[in-house]
Amino acid sequence: MITDTNLRLEVIDLFARYVACLDSGNYDAWPDFFTQDCHYRVVPRENYDAGLPLSTLSLHGVPMLRDRLYGVESTLFHAPYYQRHIIGPTLIKEQGDDGLLTETNYLVVRTKRDMPSEIFNTGRYVDRIVITPQGLRFAEKACVFDSELIPNSLIYPI
Amino acid sequence: MITDTNLRLEVIDLFARYVACLDSGNYDAWPDFFTQDCHYRVVPRENYDAGLPLSTLSLHGVPMLRDRLYGVESTLFHAPYYQRHIIGPTLIKEQGDDGLLTETNYLVVRTKRDMPSEIFNTGRYVDRIVITPQGLRFAEKACVFDSELIPNSLIYPI
Amino acid sequence: MITDTNLRLEVIDLFARYVACLDSGNYDAWPDFFTQDCHYRVVPRENYDAGLPLSTLSLHGVPMLRDRLYGVESTLFHAPYYQRHIIGPTLIKEQGDDGLLTETNYLVVRTKRDMPSEIFNTGRYVDRIVITPQGLRFAEKACVFDSELIPNSLIYPI
Repeated sequence: MITDTNLRLEVIDLFARYVACLDSGNYDAWPDFFTQDCHYRVVPRENYDAGLPLSTLSLHGVPMLRDRLYGVESTLFHAPYYQRHIIGPTLIKEQGDDGLLTETNYLVVRTKRDMPSEIFNTGRYVDRIVITPQGLRFAEKACVFDSELIPNSLIYPI
Repeated sequence: MITDTNLRLEVIDLFARYVACLDSGNYDAWPDFFTQDCHYRVVPRENYDAGLPLSTLSLHGVPMLRDRLYGVESTLFHAPYYQRHIIGPTLIKEQGDDGLLTETNYLVVRTKRDMPSEIFNTGRYVDRIVITPQGLRFAEKACVFDSELIPNSLIYPI
Repeated sequence: MITDTNLRLEVIDLFARYVACLDSGNYDAWPDFFTQDCHYRVVPRENYDAGLPLSTLSLHGVPMLRDRLYGVESTLFHAPYYQRHIIGPTLIKEQGDDGLLTETNYLVVRTKRDMPSEIFNTGRYVDRIVITPQGLRFAEKACVFDSELIPNSLIYPI
């Protein structure tokens, strides 16, 4: 167990800021949570657990994250919807030279215009978090979702 | 970031007690979480984000909170239901002379008699919390919900 | 309020590990979260609030927990499903010689093969946690669920 209280509270804060950023639709700030050479994936649990690389989304580095945002905001045809991330406590599994390995359960509730809110995606974040001069950053983030159905409208980042 | 560990843990505790109070149906204790001149609102995200004042519910001061409870318990015709609040970590956005400005994602699951549980309301609490001799109190609480549908049966406090 | 910061962080950690254990399907490790003479119950809120003992599941001691797991893995006929526990902050209600009395809201989302995720069970954990040489353990855990419908397929531990 990590005994550094401040670090643990900073990790809680990191996730609170991360989901607030996404849920408010402030996508331009999303890449700031990552290291320059990060790896961001959205991957079905079945593939992840089997060690298979196939992902619904796999982005390497901040430029690819920004490219994805450009797609979301400028080229992808989609009906807008709100996201709301409800996350549980973060489990810090390891702390080493490579950073913190953590897991955090998440539930994303989607609300489309004039529709009731519904479960959109649920699973766990499997993250590697590094300490940088600018604060904590995600070096790797895998959004491992439970449903074997690939959502046909996964537009915004999870 | 707030570096006072005790204060941060007290904030977590405040929200844990707040939702436990509501979910147990102990409504008489609900106003005790607020300052005498509080402002409590339940407001659609669309209105809130546009700076529009129209709210589904807007209560000024503890007497109005108590009046609402009187309505809930004595005059409103409604089928009873259980609420269950699942909340995420609280983001402390600012700390100043006016107190703490915080945001906390919430999901309320409703269970009616002999019915499966369902998503009732989701969104974020936007709160101003002040430190009083009796502990932390909400001076302002806005329950900003994502759905543009106004729930036709929002009876109990969120 | 508990003022021991380390203990409070350990409690958060306990719940994070508990739900990660269940959600990953690592059931063999589940009994390790309990004391040898524990009491584990899954009970409808209606019965619990009325002080009635009838439970959907009631297991006394680690051997009964292991027996239940044997049933889950070897004898019960059921379609497999994933669970995902989203839990809120833990409210520490009392700290005494008998340990910590806590309550924690939970939501379990179920995902069946080729089906969308759905709300499976929601309610609160009512726990008595004791400090042992091996760390924190549940001496009593009641999973008090809101729905008055008894789920006909509650297979895995909650």
